[in-house]
Amino acid sequence: MTHPLILDPHRFFPAEPALRTLAARLFAEVEHLPIVSPHGHTDPAWFATNAPFEDPVSLLVWPDHYLLRMLYGQGVALEQIGLAPLGGAPTETDRRVIWRRFAEHYRAFLGTSSRFWLDYVFAGVFGLDVRLEPATADRYFESISAALATPAFRPRALFERFNIEVVATTEGALDPLAHHAALQKSGWKGRVITTFRPGDVTDPAAADFATNVAALGELTKENVASWAGYLRALENRRAFFRQHGATATDHGHPTARTADLSPAECQALLDRALSGRASAEDAELFRAQILTEMARMSCDDGMVMQLHAGVWRGHNRELVRRFGRDKGDDFPLATDYVAALKPLLDRFGNRADFTLILFTLDESTYSRELAPLASHYPCLRLGPAWWFHDSPDGILRFRRQTTEIAGFYNGVGFNDDTRAFFSIPARHDLARRVDCSYLAELAATHRLDEDEAVEVARDLAYRLPKSAYHL
Amino acid sequence: MTHPLILDPHRFFPAEPALRTLAARLFAEVEHLPIVSPHGHTDPAWFATNAPFEDPVSLLVWPDHYLLRMLYGQGVALEQIGLAPLGGAPTETDRRVIWRRFAEHYRAFLGTSSRFWLDYVFAGVFGLDVRLEPATADRYFESISAALATPAFRPRALFERFNIEVVATTEGALDPLAHHAALQKSGWKGRVITTFRPGDVTDPAAADFATNVAALGELTKENVASWAGYLRALENRRAFFRQHGATATDHGHPTARTADLSPAECQALLDRALSGRASAEDAELFRAQILTEMARMSCDDGMVMQLHAGVWRGHNRELVRRFGRDKGDDFPLATDYVAALKPLLDRFGNRADFTLILFTLDESTYSRELAPLASHYPCLRLGPAWWFHDSPDGILRFRRQTTEIAGFYNGVGFNDDTRAFFSIPARHDLARRVDCSYLAELAATHRLDEDEAVEVARDLAYRLPKSAYHL
Amino acid sequence: MTHPLILDPHRFFPAEPALRTLAARLFAEVEHLPIVSPHGHTDPAWFATNAPFEDPVSLLVWPDHYLLRMLYGQGVALEQIGLAPLGGAPTETDRRVIWRRFAEHYRAFLGTSSRFWLDYVFAGVFGLDVRLEPATADRYFESISAALATPAFRPRALFERFNIEVVATTEGALDPLAHHAALQKSGWKGRVITTFRPGDVTDPAAADFATNVAALGELTKENVASWAGYLRALENRRAFFRQHGATATDHGHPTARTADLSPAECQALLDRALSGRASAEDAELFRAQILTEMARMSCDDGMVMQLHAGVWRGHNRELVRRFGRDKGDDFPLATDYVAALKPLLDRFGNRADFTLILFTLDESTYSRELAPLASHYPCLRLGPAWWFHDSPDGILRFRRQTTEIAGFYNGVGFNDDTRAFFSIPARHDLARRVDCSYLAELAATHRLDEDEAVEVARDLAYRLPKSAYHL
Repeated sequence: MTHPLILDPHRFFPAEPALRTLAARLFAEVEHLPIVSPHGHTDPAWFATNAPFEDPVSLLVWPDHYLLRMLYGQGVALEQIGLAPLGGAPTETDRRVIWRRFAEHYRAFLGTSSRFWLDYVFAGVFGLDVRLEPATADRYFESISAALATPAFRPRALFERFNIEVVATTEGALDPLAHHAALQKSGWKGRVITTFRPGDVTDPAAADFATNVAALGELTKENVASWAGYLRALENRRAFFRQHGATATDHGHPTARTADLSPAECQALLDRALSGRASAEDAELFRAQILTEMARMSCDDGMVMQLHAGVWRGHNRELVRRFGRDKGDDFPLATDYVAALKPLLDRFGNRADFTLILFTLDESTYSRELAPLASHYPCLRLGPAWWFHDSPDGILRFRRQTTEIAGFYNGVGFNDDTRAFFSIPARHDLARRVDCSYLAELAATHRLDEDEAVEVARDLAYRLPKSAYHL
Repeated sequence: MTHPLILDPHRFFPAEPALRTLAARLFAEVEHLPIVSPHGHTDPAWFATNAPFEDPVSLLVWPDHYLLRMLYGQGVALEQIGLAPLGGAPTETDRRVIWRRFAEHYRAFLGTSSRFWLDYVFAGVFGLDVRLEPATADRYFESISAALATPAFRPRALFERFNIEVVATTEGALDPLAHHAALQKSGWKGRVITTFRPGDVTDPAAADFATNVAALGELTKENVASWAGYLRALENRRAFFRQHGATATDHGHPTARTADLSPAECQALLDRALSGRASAEDAELFRAQILTEMARMSCDDGMVMQLHAGVWRGHNRELVRRFGRDKGDDFPLATDYVAALKPLLDRFGNRADFTLILFTLDESTYSRELAPLASHYPCLRLGPAWWFHDSPDGILRFRRQTTEIAGFYNGVGFNDDTRAFFSIPARHDLARRVDCSYLAELAATHRLDEDEAVEVARDLAYRLPKSAYHL
Repeated sequence: MTHPLILDPHRFFPAEPALRTLAARLFAEVEHLPIVSPHGHTDPAWFATNAPFEDPVSLLVWPDHYLLRMLYGQGVALEQIGLAPLGGAPTETDRRVIWRRFAEHYRAFLGTSSRFWLDYVFAGVFGLDVRLEPATADRYFESISAALATPAFRPRALFERFNIEVVATTEGALDPLAHHAALQKSGWKGRVITTFRPGDVTDPAAADFATNVAALGELTKENVASWAGYLRALENRRAFFRQHGATATDHGHPTARTADLSPAECQALLDRALSGRASAEDAELFRAQILTEMARMSCDDGMVMQLHAGVWRGHNRELVRRFGRDKGDDFPLATDYVAALKPLLDRFGNRADFTLILFTLDESTYSRELAPLASHYPCLRLGPAWWFHDSPDGILRFRRQTTEIAGFYNGVGFNDDTRAFFSIPARHDLARRVDCSYLAELAATHRLDEDEAVEVARDLAYRLPKSAYHL
């Protein structure tokens, strides 16, 4: 027996009939707006080469750390779903078997964002009409595999079908951006831009930091052993990224700490970092100083700055040792912003021509720190509900806990922040539906008028991300 | 084209029809109860002199740090709305121009409490029937200016029209309370009382602390260089405030820390504070000790004690330097209560004849610390949702996160805590509506009966603030 | 005048009619499932001796620290409700008078879980049909007293009437488990098992720690002065508990800190603890190490491990001195899990054959730490909303903040965690109703299908607690 899979047209809208009708009316105004995806982790090679995607497992399971996290937590060894340990070890290679294993555990995702997104991909993108479960695993595997072999499922065709106006990828500071260069020359009119994420050369705790910085020096012909030269090298790479479309930088730090040290202190920190003698506190202080330097550079070159703070990445010692990073063992931390950001804000907080977008995984800071800060400092903007919180109730909490303090216009609308290309329309669909549900609630309780709700809905879905990221 | 401005009679009530009807029925029981405003920051001079208010800008924009915060965050320089830098600098002086600028940015307030309150003031107090936007800015400026020139808009007339039974202002320890004295002699029957807020003489980090303490000594004829004399001087001022109607004290501290030090330690702290040698930790410890001393004095003189903890005031260095305090750059901090209050509670926590009302801006403490503490310690009461959280969803979160643990009777009903006189009825209207919505939800889900909901609604709106503050 | 007391069949369901109908339909599927109570604090003597309960006061008021907390917070001295100070002092002994006093303050419980549970006990267990208030206090006292004297209200009869399949009690490591042994021999088919809670011999801050450890040595014939012998003694007691039905251990710690120290460090800590020279940090580190040792033992013996972290117990100095512990003065603390659990997780986190169930009183950790951790580490499971948060809105917050991240199957369904035997059906009734309300919301908003909601409802109410605790 199978079960039907239906994308109800009222999904994620409130159950109360009047609210539902109102939410649907608002959603009709934004449903077909183009997708602006100013922050994410899709692979530019897809669009540059336009090669077909391989199969359901390599497309949907392996790159999705949300799925790896949950499958692993349910007792599925990563080898059982085809991930090879770094040292090599017996690993399942039959992708049909892996897909069946995923189907067996699909029930564990009930109620989660992953499930909502995947069901949209299955029904909305691949046209599947039965639920994924053990009985339908093979049917899924075959249908998806067959579709992927067709021209309509090539990356560029999907980019157009998904109605994407622009998508930003994210690359490390040393990346040659060859795919972006190829795209610029290709004549294809899809807009795929890069984002400058310099962690490999700005975080002394990163693997190969000193080697990376040396490579940075070679790339830029700067003396990166001197603090001034190191900064010039970063400026140089920012310019290179801008030439490849970048309008923004991105910084993923364990905390939001910033610093404003003297050049001598900076040089001493750099010396210790390059010689591998940096303590954990040195590394933290180095990152803190980098944020302030990046803010200064943004004031100069106009790049929008994003801070994704408060994550302990690679928490599972054994998993990191055996499989490396990004396997679903990254965890949020309690995060301070009010004290942490002060050194940076003391220098650049009052600049209305500079934009620093803040993201958090610590929801307790929404109303306590982020909404108050973002509603006061001209440079600050509040990023949308991120990662673990990009979900129906998560987005509602974000709206409810920030809007009454900061309104809508100290925010930046929606980001999908995904490496799962197929889920992009699913994520924008969900976010637009939930934002319209929230706005319906405001309108139905006379906290704003319906004409205002329509304008805000459009701003959140389209105008704000476009303007905030200078797109 | 203009848009109508309507105060819907069902505003802020739940959208679901049965809940809405029930909320409206409950609200009808409290809508016309007199306003008891036991904590706020209105200016006693208004009521003492009964002089007319000037114009919309000086009345509604300049004193409202909620508006300054958001306008500044939207990139409006404070000079552009008429605030003069301390050192002097070109500043917009045309109030009509300033009002237009405010109207241009009114959209940024969509969804915020400021918008809800102001729309009530515009429609409910001034009778305006179109939305504030650029096209209506001049009409607003003229209507409001004209109204303010009439006798019906004098402070005392509004006090009566607003159905205020009693309002408490807040004055520093050195204040001569001349306006309160004048009011007591005036024969006007409006009840305007003061509140003792001694931060100027109890916080070593306050500007001019030593000078203020010296002035305290002169006022009270006590030797304030000795700890015992200093305490006697504070007791003396408390008595003076009580003579001017005060029933409560108020303490705004960066943390909720309390201490119970020996007299020798206190004397040493005072010595360092008066000589300007107090470290940040000294100042913190001094404030901590002051809270315990204030509790002791309250046990003696019966004054209700209020603690508004957890705010970093004057966070924007440049703004403080150029414009001073209270310009919207105050931010909440993560705040501990369970450990912080223990020294004070160890001494006075079991006193049922002492009342300490706790306020927080850290919503994560509602269910984790404040509701549990307030439901156990006889002296403790939980203050209402404060400042950033005095909003429809903010009040609902407060009720939902505290009631199941502490019930309603370890709370104190509603406080408006405002310096915006015209918004007082708006704030009480909103809070009563939201509390009735919450009670409707409880009744409709059979968590209490409707007769109980009516009693609780009346208690929250009127009886509890009156009894908790000994009014 | 009295007021009717009615348990509405739709209590705790959403007010919106379609949601309510759907919730009721789901609830009908779980309403009559047997009660599995894998964690709680009922007294095994009740079931072993099957002696009648005495009277309403000793049954319902004295053992319930929720009631003591609130009554005390409302200014009722514990002596006034019959609790005798440790040193002896005049105390109310007339239980009818005490019951009247409780009735006078019953209004303070409006909106709290205690009220919901008690009304269920009054109406659902005792068949009372009027509200408890001063006018009905005597009627209550007499009705309840009369019922308690009948065979139908003996512990075993109620156990069966409540449809309890299994209940776990909690005993200290030194407990002889005589009642459990008697039960095993009794032939009665009710399943009452114990849980190993070794805090008396594993927390150096516990009263009489050294004496308790000495007793542990005598009981087990191990040299508990050596770390290895001490651990063997604990293993020995775990085995003894398993013989009396235990499938789980329980650890109530002020923090979730874990450690992985060398044997020499452990020995040094034990030496200091036994000689009474352990500092607060030593005690914390000792407890931290114990958690890791307990995890290791669980990997060996298969016992499920529970961690109830983040409580400051006995906060009210005067109350502890006069009345001892568990009088309602226990308070939650901000609690870290991501860093705190790492030493334990580094060793045993990847074991799918080990189960560590995490509970918290810090709701800010639901979405920030616990749901992410529980959805990744194979050993981790998320315990239900605990203590202060075991309430309609508390349970909804738990579900809303954890499900979207961790789904349902990294959780363990419901625990009542109560010492109030009569409230067990009330608590399961409430939790099942609220879980069904949440599931109705998911189904009505098309986040899952109704057939899935039914399965999840059954899992939460019955199957998950049974399987997670190996029952």
